[in-house]
Amino acid sequence: MNKMQITQASVPEGVIDLGIGQPQVDLLPLDKMNLAWEHQLKQANPEILQYGLQQGDARLRRELAGFLTRAYNNAVGPESLLVTGGISQALDLLCTLLTRPGDTIIVEEPSYFLALRIFRDHHLNIVGTPMDENGLIIPALEERVKQYEPKLVYTIPVYHNPAGVTLPAQRREDLVRLSTIFDFLIVADEVYQLLSYADPPPPPMAFFDTAERVISLGSFSKILAPGLRLGWMHAQRQLLEPFWMCGALDSGGGSNPFNAAIVSSAIELGLLQENLQHLKTTYTARRDVLCRALKEHIPQLNFTLPHGGFFIWAELAGRMAAESILEKASHHDVGFQPGVLFSSMNGLGSFLRLCFTYYAGEDLVKGVRRLAQALGGTR
Amino acid sequence: MNKMQITQASVPEGVIDLGIGQPQVDLLPLDKMNLAWEHQLKQANPEILQYGLQQGDARLRRELAGFLTRAYNNAVGPESLLVTGGISQALDLLCTLLTRPGDTIIVEEPSYFLALRIFRDHHLNIVGTPMDENGLIIPALEERVKQYEPKLVYTIPVYHNPAGVTLPAQRREDLVRLSTIFDFLIVADEVYQLLSYADPPPPPMAFFDTAERVISLGSFSKILAPGLRLGWMHAQRQLLEPFWMCGALDSGGGSNPFNAAIVSSAIELGLLQENLQHLKTTYTARRDVLCRALKEHIPQLNFTLPHGGFFIWAELAGRMAAESILEKASHHDVGFQPGVLFSSMNGLGSFLRLCFTYYAGEDLVKGVRRLAQALGGTR
Repeated sequence: MNKMQITQASVPEGVIDLGIGQPQVDLLPLDKMNLAWEHQLKQANPEILQYGLQQGDARLRRELAGFLTRAYNNAVGPESLLVTGGISQALDLLCTLLTRPGDTIIVEEPSYFLALRIFRDHHLNIVGTPMDENGLIIPALEERVKQYEPKLVYTIPVYHNPAGVTLPAQRREDLVRLSTIFDFLIVADEVYQLLSYADPPPPPMAFFDTAERVISLGSFSKILAPGLRLGWMHAQRQLLEPFWMCGALDSGGGSNPFNAAIVSSAIELGLLQENLQHLKTTYTARRDVLCRALKEHIPQLNFTLPHGGFFIWAELAGRMAAESILEKASHHDVGFQPGVLFSSMNGLGSFLRLCFTYYAGEDLVKGVRRLAQALGGTR
Repeated sequence: MNKMQITQASVPEGVIDLGIGQPQVDLLPLDKMNLAWEHQLKQANPEILQYGLQQGDARLRRELAGFLTRAYNNAVGPESLLVTGGISQALDLLCTLLTRPGDTIIVEEPSYFLALRIFRDHHLNIVGTPMDENGLIIPALEERVKQYEPKLVYTIPVYHNPAGVTLPAQRREDLVRLSTIFDFLIVADEVYQLLSYADPPPPPMAFFDTAERVISLGSFSKILAPGLRLGWMHAQRQLLEPFWMCGALDSGGGSNPFNAAIVSSAIELGLLQENLQHLKTTYTARRDVLCRALKEHIPQLNFTLPHGGFFIWAELAGRMAAESILEKASHHDVGFQPGVLFSSMNGLGSFLRLCFTYYAGEDLVKGVRRLAQALGGTR
């Protein structure tokens, strides 16, 4: 078999691209998936290959509800979950069913760059709202809500991609209060909720919902495997109805019933919990390595230690433009994501996003040394 | 474990619902999927769990291109394929990327009822166009195209669901010619293309494309397993670009890379071909049983023998309303899909759709006998 590109990230030999926001391939649990598959196979249920329920596999929702209840230390019922094909598919479906072209969606500045692409594909009017070290700033959001009357507010309230910050409980309550006054829905992308390297964060936004205003989005991509394309919506039941009534999920028989069945076994066997624990240990160490190396080799970078997630969001001193360094960095065989990518208003030029999950420790240090050379020295 | 509903079709004990358009659970190839999985596992490639390419798994596209080339007896290249999460997801994405609310889509009368739901979810203006025993009638379509200036024409050109008919080569050429004159795209839902019980049908619509006007949609749902949520677009490369450039597939890393890898093994090992052959033999026999039973027990039903697919599309004599029999049928523990469901203009009241793939022979006969009682006798 010829060598062909299989995965999305394609890095030339020898390059360390700290811009890639993915788990390292070595951390993907093929053996655990095999155990889960064998467990399914033993049950001899060809039904896992049939059209499934629009709301998603019943066993997965039951197992996941139990898993999340333990993880959040807060009760989650299977009826409040809808299985999705990952957060990307969920965002896409959500735009289809809840918006029309020209509707306004308010996003954080910065925000997840590919979510912005999904919103653009749906021709939404994207308006940015500023954040500080505690996530989105409520009075600033209120101003924009009054001015733009958004249909949706898209937030990444926990271990933000790229900013790393987490919205405290008080702001979460304030956000929900705003949503009831100004009649918008909150879409909370909580893909990193369970990847905590310190005290647990506040519970997901869905727990703050007092009036059917919040859809929390979760995913197996960061805690098990992205290639499964499996995630969930967590919301009050009535908010989920438009989704399980929609044509695409009715016609297709729900999202990924086959994978859902295998993952339900992975949860039942304790493999998901084991995998999550392993990732947390690994990523904590890698985060520390990256942060230490940055402090040592690039003291002119400002950043705050993230308590979870995948990323360091760092600002160059003197408002230097990150994009202007990209080419130089490539000469030093190192890459990163420039901040402007995460801006809905063409800002954030002096920021860069560095990921600590795709490379092991020694490569992270090597990458930082190269970046230091690109920033400081000449070639 | 409590008994819970797993599959989409939920039929009360003892009822024979000839309306269900799904494969029988017993025909779903769990053992073959296990062989394919073991083949993947032996290759020890955790990459199958990673974010994949937007266009879809490269191995699947290569294997599928070879498989389709043999099946169609016409060359298909991997570059002309894009992996989808099944036809339902493909239709949804297609509406997002190629239409705006209020755009017109022309559909056949009758058409696949859940596709109509997807189009409604995208707020399209749905216009029906009549068919005869050879599929859509070109002069009638031309009239509607002139009047409504559609963005898309959605056709099921082969073993139509529900009508069972197939569009001949000449009409396919005429349809493409119209699309170039009146500037619309043809979306061909060819989910039953490979399920032929007689001479092969004309090749997929994509082979008739002379001017980047046709997107052919295929699926593993009917030839392997619906629960995989895996299918493909087949079109000239430039037509596929908006899809692999879109936010949802970029963010998610393509459609279902894990399943795609397993299915690529199923093709490589010859299991897909074997499964398809088994289904064709089984379904041919079931079709014949259903047709014979209908002729014997319900002579007042008019239908033509379908040469492929899942369905008999039958008309009640004397323009009797099929819906009016539904309740009576339920008293006789038998079900069907009333024709009106497949109409975009609230017509087709005297038709019913009967599926011959979900039940084995004796149940099909039993179902027909019950239907005959519901139609003719009193309870």
